[in-house]
Amino acid sequence: MRHGIGIDLGGTTVKGVAFDCDGGQMLAQASQPTDFVVNAADSGQPAFAHAVRCVVADLERDIGAPAKVMGLSAPGMASAGSDRIAYIPNRLEGLQDFVWSDWLQRPTAVLNDAHAALLGEIWQGSARGLSDVVLLTLGTGVGGAVVTGGKLLRGHIGRGGHLGHIALDFMAEGDICGTPGSLEDQVGNATIAVRSGGRFAMTHELIEALEAGDSEARDIWDRSMRALAAGVTSLVNVLDPKAVIIGGGISTAWHHIEPALNRWLDEFEWRPGGARVEIRRAKLGEWAGAYGALAFALEASPSLG
Amino acid sequence: MRHGIGIDLGGTTVKGVAFDCDGGQMLAQASQPTDFVVNAADSGQPAFAHAVRCVVADLERDIGAPAKVMGLSAPGMASAGSDRIAYIPNRLEGLQDFVWSDWLQRPTAVLNDAHAALLGEIWQGSARGLSDVVLLTLGTGVGGAVVTGGKLLRGHIGRGGHLGHIALDFMAEGDICGTPGSLEDQVGNATIAVRSGGRFAMTHELIEALEAGDSEARDIWDRSMRALAAGVTSLVNVLDPKAVIIGGGISTAWHHIEPALNRWLDEFEWRPGGARVEIRRAKLGEWAGAYGALAFALEASPSLG
Repeated sequence: MRHGIGIDLGGTTVKGVAFDCDGGQMLAQASQPTDFVVNAADSGQPAFAHAVRCVVADLERDIGAPAKVMGLSAPGMASAGSDRIAYIPNRLEGLQDFVWSDWLQRPTAVLNDAHAALLGEIWQGSARGLSDVVLLTLGTGVGGAVVTGGKLLRGHIGRGGHLGHIALDFMAEGDICGTPGSLEDQVGNATIAVRSGGRFAMTHELIEALEAGDSEARDIWDRSMRALAAGVTSLVNVLDPKAVIIGGGISTAWHHIEPALNRWLDEFEWRPGGARVEIRRAKLGEWAGAYGALAFALEASPSLG
Repeated sequence: MRHGIGIDLGGTTVKGVAFDCDGGQMLAQASQPTDFVVNAADSGQPAFAHAVRCVVADLERDIGAPAKVMGLSAPGMASAGSDRIAYIPNRLEGLQDFVWSDWLQRPTAVLNDAHAALLGEIWQGSARGLSDVVLLTLGTGVGGAVVTGGKLLRGHIGRGGHLGHIALDFMAEGDICGTPGSLEDQVGNATIAVRSGGRFAMTHELIEALEAGDSEARDIWDRSMRALAAGVTSLVNVLDPKAVIIGGGISTAWHHIEPALNRWLDEFEWRPGGARVEIRRAKLGEWAGAYGALAFALEASPSLG
């Protein structure tokens, strides 16, 4: 049995999964807070690096063997050689250009966390077997990833799949990246206070009011879902996926998302020959990145996987 | 010397180019009106099929030899096997499911005309050597194509790259495909009368007024360029190309497009690490599809090409 480990390094938590690579069976899961090693600075290495080592050690103790295949996902843009995060401003200091194969003392395939989440859903989640598929994550911000023709869409500098930053209202103000009236600004948690005139601080408060029959909440939600559908429509016309997978914290309100989104898509979506995109809910939740990091490493090292 | 022919079948004209496939040298060009064979129906075959045969015959007479590599581009979505157009409603009756290798009596690689135009620009035009690049064609409508990781983005049903149908104003009315406030509706020639309150019938009239110092024309143009920049921004964040190539009839007003577009991009574009997308003008004009059809055929038959 050959073992593989996938690690997702997040701003608050490091998560890891260990698999039997031959059988595709989960062997163990582990997680630690990203900053739980309090005196990390004394070692001259960032706390997140120690946390990753601890999660790897936990998993290998559980499975009783070293992992031959190792993948790691993290925020930022991965290098073209997939050995490190090559660009991440203002977060996780020390992560940019940190070479993981040196630190973990074995080949480690590194990729962006949203990219990993989609590969995870394709490998073990709700996008199994799909070769043309889009992931949208709805949370504080809106992110995503694209697989087209069976390949991860990375692009020229690894920025591919920043799906929250598509313009849906070109005369509006720019978002955090400069995009006018972006999908992120129309749907993400970060703007719910602005979108509700200060009434709601979090999307789940909006959902509660919606469920209590509040008509203002209904209007705000419907406008968000119209924007989401317009964004999905754009992505369908550009990328032509078989399915759009929706994840992130806001997707817990699935019974309010799915019917509203499909209603607007009936109006907006171009359906040549009757083809219509499938809207599916993500399955792996916060573990998707760890699954996907391993899936990516398996693909990168076929002789081992 | 091995000869190759690329044919672009359009609604009004059939264009063809013949190349020396080894040296990459153009040997001949030819074109005919798509419906110039007046009694075509008597043969039981559509007029466009006869026009294509005539253009092929013209080229082979000029080069004095049969072509070993043959590609054909046309409107609509190509089949997954690239032997025919599998979907085209309401235009060029008889083209859907017409099998070109039977009609031309040799293997013929078939692809969508916008896809072909981008492959042409990559092979012989302004996108030479690029592996992550987007083409936008601005004309009556707005179309385009995407190459990512060196591969044409086809998608699940061959719809990939319908870049005119991205939503830029999600509360607006739907365009011809249902997309609310689409790039096509904000920029294409088909809506210039609506966008100018009936004052201009064609974009070149708007450009003339703009050059005469008309302030209303300036405002309409600037709004269009803001929309175009918002669309380019969306495509950059999703697809991360090294360059966006702009073609189509409206691109003849390049000296008005380039500065306005770049000014808005300075405001809208996310430039991680200083990276910025290049805006380039398409080079091959109306012949791009024919070039690209041959480029596609060469790629599909490497042993011949």
